[in-house]
Formats: sequence, C-alpha cells, structure tokens
Amino acid sequence: MQREKPTIDRIFHALGDPTRRAIMEELGSGPSSVSRLAEPFGISLAAVVQHLQVLEECGLVQTEKVGRVRTCRIEPGGLEAAALWIAALRTPWERSLDRLGELLAEPEAALAEAPEAEWLG
Amino acid sequence: MQREKPTIDRIFHALGDPTRRAIMEELGSGPSSVSRLAEPFGISLAAVVQHLQVLEECGLVQTEKVGRVRTCRIEPGGLEAAALWIAALRTPWERSLDRLGELLAEPEAALAEAPEAEWLG
Repeated sequence: MQREKPTIDRIFHALGDPTRRAIMEELGSGPSSVSRLAEPFGISLAAVVQHLQVLEECGLVQTEKVGRVRTCRIEPGGLEAAALWIAALRTPWERSLDRLGELLAEPEAALAEAPEAEWLG
Repeated sequence: MQREKPTIDRIFHALGDPTRRAIMEELGSGPSSVSRLAEPFGISLAAVVQHLQVLEECGLVQTEKVGRVRTCRIEPGGLEAAALWIAALRTPWERSLDRLGELLAEPEAALAEAPEAEWLG
C-alpha cells in the first residue's frame, strides 16, 4: 500500500512552508534574481538561498547562473505533478457531483442513460 | 511579505507524508471506517488515527462517529484550497503559453488584437 513517491513528498513538504510559498508567489509574476527575491522577505540572503535550494531540489523552481547573477523561475513540472495528484483525487468526487447534477436537472433523460441509477426511480 | 495562511501550511504539510497521501487516495474511492482504512497500511490503528487527526484538523478529511464506528471521508474544501493556490500560480504561466500559442498559430490576427506585442512586428 505504501507507495514510493519521493518527489511528491518533497513537493508538498516544500509547499508547507509559508516563506517558500511566498517565494513561489513572487516568482509567479516572473523570473527574478536571488537578491531581488530576498529583498521583501526580511530574512537573510543565506536563508532565501536555502529555501530556493529546497524548491529547486524538488522541481518547483529552476535557477540559472549567468555571470554573477543567479536567476530563478518557476519550473512548471513540479506544480503540474502536485496539481495532477490533487486532480486524480478530486475526479471521483467531481464525477459523482456532475452525475448528481445531471440526475437532478433531467431525471428522465439521465435515468434512461443510466441503468445503475434505478434506485432513484 | 510573509503572509499568514496557517491552513494552507497545514494542508501542504499534511500532504507531504506518504502514508497520509495513501489514506487520501484510499478515501478517494469512497468513505471508509477507520479500522477498514488501517488494514492495508501495516501500521497500528493508533498511528492511522493520528494521521487521520492531522488530515481532519487541516480540513482534508471529515470523520463522523455513529455508534462505535467512525467513518472517514474526503472533505473537498481542503483539496480545493490547495488546488486553488496552485492554479493561481500557474495561471500567469498558462496565460503566457496560451498567448504564445496564439501568436504562433495566427501571427497577424493575434498581433492586430494585441498592441502590446508590437515588438514582434
């Protein structure tokens, strides 16, 4: 039963920290240098670098050093993985809600298509 | 800059644990009693109860005790909050990708509608 999904573990763990989420939100409006990113947080550059390393290691952020400037940007793959995990879990719920919505909206038509819903008849 | 979002913190923290995610996946196929939920995990009932408490406290799971049986089910609100946080972050990226797609597909039409894209002309 226990499945090995180390990256998803690390992605959700990384997003559980408010400073790291604030960094992600900041990067949501576009790439940024590490020092510009550190400014609004009121914490040391070293602490921001440490948070960025956590975000980079789990695939939520990518950084690139050109000359003396390291630029950080969101790596969409990491968010995609988290979104997919949530979506897979929500799908059965949404399906039952959609189905319920159909049954309530058009009971006769929906029942004709859905023999499993006979108990409603 | 540091924003207070204790629930989102707790939601992502809760999802960072593989056993808790496996419990969520199990509940994704429908509500379950605590004891039935504990069976496949090979850990003590007490440990499962502790994980369920974490999931319940952050709004990912709701439990209801009827007689001697406590039934657990997914609380869609918690997943919704996590999905919304991710979606808000992905939106600017998706928008730029959509926009790029439009420009590549129909350069003239897209440019006519988008004066800000003059630099492409």
